[in-house]
Amino acid sequence: MLRMAPGPDPGREPGPDPSLFREGMSRVAGAVHLVTTDGLAGRGGFTATAVTPVTDDPPSLLVCINTSGRSAKALLANGTFGVSTLASDDRALAEVFAGRSNSGEDRFTQGEWQRGGSGSPLLVSALVAFDCRISDARVVATHHVIIGEITGIRLGELRRPLIYQGRLYHGL
Amino acid sequence: MLRMAPGPDPGREPGPDPSLFREGMSRVAGAVHLVTTDGLAGRGGFTATAVTPVTDDPPSLLVCINTSGRSAKALLANGTFGVSTLASDDRALAEVFAGRSNSGEDRFTQGEWQRGGSGSPLLVSALVAFDCRISDARVVATHHVIIGEITGIRLGELRRPLIYQGRLYHGL
Repeated sequence: MLRMAPGPDPGREPGPDPSLFREGMSRVAGAVHLVTTDGLAGRGGFTATAVTPVTDDPPSLLVCINTSGRSAKALLANGTFGVSTLASDDRALAEVFAGRSNSGEDRFTQGEWQRGGSGSPLLVSALVAFDCRISDARVVATHHVIIGEITGIRLGELRRPLIYQGRLYHGL
Repeated sequence: MLRMAPGPDPGREPGPDPSLFREGMSRVAGAVHLVTTDGLAGRGGFTATAVTPVTDDPPSLLVCINTSGRSAKALLANGTFGVSTLASDDRALAEVFAGRSNSGEDRFTQGEWQRGGSGSPLLVSALVAFDCRISDARVVATHHVIIGEITGIRLGELRRPLIYQGRLYHGL
């Protein structure tokens, strides 16, 4: 019933290699979000699952993003970002914002957008959208761990959420 | 189609109150995990959805936990913890580890457990279980943000994941 990571000593697990880590994390289901920003440093956005609430006082969330992305640089420089949580109907948008075939700007020609108070684009069809101001950011190896204090919340229609698990999209 | 948070100025969103934050976050689907620890500071565990990968080099994940919990204190003092990602069959365990009706110790009488290399209990029926050593921890208002470097991964059987969304458990 249980497969152990291979290692020389069965009583002690070795540190996993990145491919085992990715396989393990692929088992973990996650909501799918579009993380967006707009401001003096430019507009950008990308698909993310590494988003989690931190505290309700003051309401804050946390996003992990790769340091090498162009949108990450714009987000940090603008100091503000939006998180739009996708419904299952918006799977195509998840693919556009995860794709390599178009630039940050072109991605926004799809979907209907409204600005939050911070200027960040928020997706009108999102289940919920959070407008955030960066309250803390630091680098952990390959990724930025960014905490956003939430300055606005828009509740959308109640629809089925989009889930990513086993390297596939699903509707709940 | 869109409801705005109420506020005196429609062009500018007010900071949300905690109840709106909780309603917004209830829209965000999440995998359900049991976060556990064992060591000199004692054994404990609780149900958590606020878990996210951080980087694959070195493989690391992040957990947000309330500073007031007893298990949180044990986890920080032990310096090690396990994260077991639940299948939909293990919904009862999610409820036991989220409940107030039994202490940290009693919770482990349910489910089948094996120790990871760190000594943390890992659930045998988990979709995947991560054994972790704390590499960073800090307080953000009401919560600890804890980064664990992953020292072992156990891949379980491929089964339907348990999802929490809309304040209800679901199978994917």
